[in-house]
Amino acid sequence: MRYAYLGPEGTFAEQALRTIPGTDSAASADLKAARSVPEALDALRAGEADAALVPLENSIGGQVGVTLDELANGEPLVIIREVVLPVQFVLAARADRPLATIRTVAAHPQAGTQCRNWLREHVPDAEVRDVLSNATAAIGAAQGDYDAAVCAEIGARRYKLTVLAKDIADHADAVTRFALVSRPGPPPPPTGDDLTTLAVYIAHDRVGALLAVLTELSVRGVNLTRIESRPTGERLGRYVFFLDCGGHVHDIPMGEALKGLHRVCADVRFLGSYPRAGHDQAPKPRPGYADRDFLEAEDWLARVRAGSAS
Amino acid sequence: MRYAYLGPEGTFAEQALRTIPGTDSAASADLKAARSVPEALDALRAGEADAALVPLENSIGGQVGVTLDELANGEPLVIIREVVLPVQFVLAARADRPLATIRTVAAHPQAGTQCRNWLREHVPDAEVRDVLSNATAAIGAAQGDYDAAVCAEIGARRYKLTVLAKDIADHADAVTRFALVSRPGPPPPPTGDDLTTLAVYIAHDRVGALLAVLTELSVRGVNLTRIESRPTGERLGRYVFFLDCGGHVHDIPMGEALKGLHRVCADVRFLGSYPRAGHDQAPKPRPGYADRDFLEAEDWLARVRAGSAS
Amino acid sequence: MRYAYLGPEGTFAEQALRTIPGTDSAASADLKAARSVPEALDALRAGEADAALVPLENSIGGQVGVTLDELANGEPLVIIREVVLPVQFVLAARADRPLATIRTVAAHPQAGTQCRNWLREHVPDAEVRDVLSNATAAIGAAQGDYDAAVCAEIGARRYKLTVLAKDIADHADAVTRFALVSRPGPPPPPTGDDLTTLAVYIAHDRVGALLAVLTELSVRGVNLTRIESRPTGERLGRYVFFLDCGGHVHDIPMGEALKGLHRVCADVRFLGSYPRAGHDQAPKPRPGYADRDFLEAEDWLARVRAGSAS
Amino acid sequence: MRYAYLGPEGTFAEQALRTIPGTDSAASADLKAARSVPEALDALRAGEADAALVPLENSIGGQVGVTLDELANGEPLVIIREVVLPVQFVLAARADRPLATIRTVAAHPQAGTQCRNWLREHVPDAEVRDVLSNATAAIGAAQGDYDAAVCAEIGARRYKLTVLAKDIADHADAVTRFALVSRPGPPPPPTGDDLTTLAVYIAHDRVGALLAVLTELSVRGVNLTRIESRPTGERLGRYVFFLDCGGHVHDIPMGEALKGLHRVCADVRFLGSYPRAGHDQAPKPRPGYADRDFLEAEDWLARVRAGSAS
Repeated sequence: MRYAYLGPEGTFAEQALRTIPGTDSAASADLKAARSVPEALDALRAGEADAALVPLENSIGGQVGVTLDELANGEPLVIIREVVLPVQFVLAARADRPLATIRTVAAHPQAGTQCRNWLREHVPDAEVRDVLSNATAAIGAAQGDYDAAVCAEIGARRYKLTVLAKDIADHADAVTRFALVSRPGPPPPPTGDDLTTLAVYIAHDRVGALLAVLTELSVRGVNLTRIESRPTGERLGRYVFFLDCGGHVHDIPMGEALKGLHRVCADVRFLGSYPRAGHDQAPKPRPGYADRDFLEAEDWLARVRAGSAS
Repeated sequence: MRYAYLGPEGTFAEQALRTIPGTDSAASADLKAARSVPEALDALRAGEADAALVPLENSIGGQVGVTLDELANGEPLVIIREVVLPVQFVLAARADRPLATIRTVAAHPQAGTQCRNWLREHVPDAEVRDVLSNATAAIGAAQGDYDAAVCAEIGARRYKLTVLAKDIADHADAVTRFALVSRPGPPPPPTGDDLTTLAVYIAHDRVGALLAVLTELSVRGVNLTRIESRPTGERLGRYVFFLDCGGHVHDIPMGEALKGLHRVCADVRFLGSYPRAGHDQAPKPRPGYADRDFLEAEDWLARVRAGSAS
Repeated sequence: MRYAYLGPEGTFAEQALRTIPGTDSAASADLKAARSVPEALDALRAGEADAALVPLENSIGGQVGVTLDELANGEPLVIIREVVLPVQFVLAARADRPLATIRTVAAHPQAGTQCRNWLREHVPDAEVRDVLSNATAAIGAAQGDYDAAVCAEIGARRYKLTVLAKDIADHADAVTRFALVSRPGPPPPPTGDDLTTLAVYIAHDRVGALLAVLTELSVRGVNLTRIESRPTGERLGRYVFFLDCGGHVHDIPMGEALKGLHRVCADVRFLGSYPRAGHDQAPKPRPGYADRDFLEAEDWLARVRAGSAS
Repeated sequence: MRYAYLGPEGTFAEQALRTIPGTDSAASADLKAARSVPEALDALRAGEADAALVPLENSIGGQVGVTLDELANGEPLVIIREVVLPVQFVLAARADRPLATIRTVAAHPQAGTQCRNWLREHVPDAEVRDVLSNATAAIGAAQGDYDAAVCAEIGARRYKLTVLAKDIADHADAVTRFALVSRPGPPPPPTGDDLTTLAVYIAHDRVGALLAVLTELSVRGVNLTRIESRPTGERLGRYVFFLDCGGHVHDIPMGEALKGLHRVCADVRFLGSYPRAGHDQAPKPRPGYADRDFLEAEDWLARVRAGSAS
């Protein structure tokens, strides 16, 4: 397997990728860091990689717009796995030093924001300098451009920095959700606790179009776990909605819901069905909404259509 | 074909039955008047008739509760045809006489109600006496028990009465809708403009259960043309709902809606799919809700499930 | 107080009326039996009575169409009280006699239907003769026209019949719900457990109009306890819906729901708010739907509009 | 008036701010560039500015998450005006030069993405270097760090660059929507074509909570023009929704919808009512949903409650 992932090396994306079986250094997996999400996905589309790992959202920073846009546009791709990774920041420097001596801190803007309170309290006199990635921050500190860096632990290790403080994010339990993406193909088999991701273009000339979308799901007992909007680029006020729904495309309720969306929406792009990460117990469908209820209803309808007493 | 119908002879039900091809007197059809709706349907259930014609509703008097109750309970039966008949009342007497001389008028209570204004204006001094059917009124007038009768023209003819006034109903265009009912069997083929009748028992422990029923229909573009409630007999506040929906059980949207109802309701009894009477042009489904839209969505889902780029 | 009620004397309506304080024979109440529901309500409209008691529905027989029609049309009237009365039938005769000797039984058709199984089992050889009311049956038996009558116990007593069998209805716990109706005026004060009755004309040119009506209620947490349809008389397929809703017109959620219905419906006629009969405990509104939640939201909105930080 | 805005000088935010009457250089307005959105809003909260101009969304890049997060958290603020600005990019350099000679181009990542196709086609051999803002790119080019910069025309002017190419964005009509924010206070008066922005926290323990939110709006005829989700930071799967709705907090339908949201949501933060930018004609409410319809319903309810015939 050849993997592309959002680089540079030593960031959370690499860390997430390495949670996938067969990707440790001992294995023969071919891991290639891409400079950007589009580059990673273009490598996949071009056949230079078999799968690509890119960030979808962060529990603090929210959607990763560029990933959503890339999935909605261009040659279709599908998510085959999600990885949810705790993202903990450290403050690291070339060598151990008192916090009071730190005057400049390099940080990716989102990282700086997530550690704002900690930085205010512990290095109140330091100036926070925006840089373009967590790895860039670490490299900058290693080169002496800044006194310290806010980065991932894997980044501190790779650039041989000393960790001055751990777990410095204001929210102790922040996570980033990554998607392992592949070219279209049969989805991984249903596990009983799956997610399905969709890009949905509503019919803008229809009043209550988004309400209609949610109703299509709700009527089949399909649970919406996430909704994001992204501009379509046409003009302000036109959005494509990204939905994460509980269930697998091979589940009967999900199949019926998808058909409903296909009918009432301007367009629907299927972006994959894959196991939900880190859930110990599968959600129990409400009475009347399990696969067996749909099968039982199908049997009943067949009898009714055949003219037997129902 | 052997037909049972709500008697006695000479009422609107017979008139409605005779609109069905092969029921005129020249034909070999076997027509038997039943004393009541239950009797007509019991004859059908017992195999003594092949079909039964009973009233469903009147555009003035509303639901015919006994018919609805009989269809909801006992051995299942299905409607295979509807007949919508103009019901015009006449004032008839043994012989021609001035209206001013009339002192007593026999009328079935519903007929009396429907002609109330006319009677008040034209025979203000007459006492209206309730009788048990339109035919009973005619017979009573023929026997001299009353000066005149409110009845159907077919009844006046049969009992050799003279029609004193025609079209005496306050609503000139009243109609009664009759159902031709048979034992379960394959429904008549779809015509593109059909109705499906259902008896639906909602889940009483579920908030908004009736709203959920209507939503199941609406989401599939199935139009509700009539809803009646009848008590289930268990206790006050428990109803069974009779729905007439546009479409045929073999139509894809209707099939999906029926399955949805079967899942979310305590019980659903299918009461037949049959051509809508007297409509010149079939309703056009909204965009996204035609059979071809459902088929196209089915194809799309199959492609998505197979893993081809959608 | 002068009361009109659906006569004749000795039927369930009189029995229901006498449950109202101040209507026993010792009291000075003026009780007048009307020949029909329209007659009772016309007396009320004409000022000849101060209130009228008429049947609304029976837990077996269903809606009393004529009452609903009379409430929906003509000069407005409002329900100020409901009475729910167990309706038990007896088999009565001029004198005690073995059931086996009974050859003819007089019964109102609905009464006959409700006792059908009992009659089949206990007087299988008797012919059931339809008559126009329970009192008519009793009178007929008293006059010797029939061997026995199916009637109310109050009727057997009044016409000095001997009760041969009690509780002969197939459903042991049948009830009839009566309405005490008055000319418009301030409704009785809210009790915390009230009903509001409405006649609603949906906008027929609007798709999903009935769904919209139910949504207006549901969004305000107003519970629908009963829905009946009656033809408007215009033509088949046009109905007026009678809704019984939990709550009082002075309750905030109900007020907002009524305003919503008034906006989205072709017409709404308010038919009264009155205490729910026979409920020991008031229903508890869902969180967010109690009067205090509406008041709290009103306060919040006022603050927001005034420009204070919400 | 003292204004804070998202700096540095010479970016689209300054250009947007200068569209507000009284902000041109001749006027006495006090304009201060902030280093970040939080800094601009903190200045406002601290009373160091009277209003702050910050970006809300871009028709290509989507939501500006940091602005949304800042509005949802901390001391309440409200939007009092929106500015929609065409954002056109230029390619600029220290001096005029053939495109073929350009080897490095500085660009903010989002700007680089928006001009990707143009850059590929016209400077295919140039390396695009990510920088932290459009102004940074211009400064870098002015200092000779890069051969050229993708920036705003106002930036090229300020840093005395020569524009090599105009309108280089792949979407010719991209716009950014900015919000002028103030401390809480009475909103600007309704104009008949306003927007209201809300931050809504749904009740996560309630099935279909988002559907319920949309229904609250839809039932009052309030149009949803935009929905964005942002993580609350608690944990993955918890979102706050930002809604832009057609109408003003002083409009009756909007007021009722807001009260509904307040009741059914875990929390609602009002983020301002303000005139919709750049719309020539106000939207016409559907029949039944105009202010006058709500007033008329209010009158009707008052009459009903008073006991007059409705």
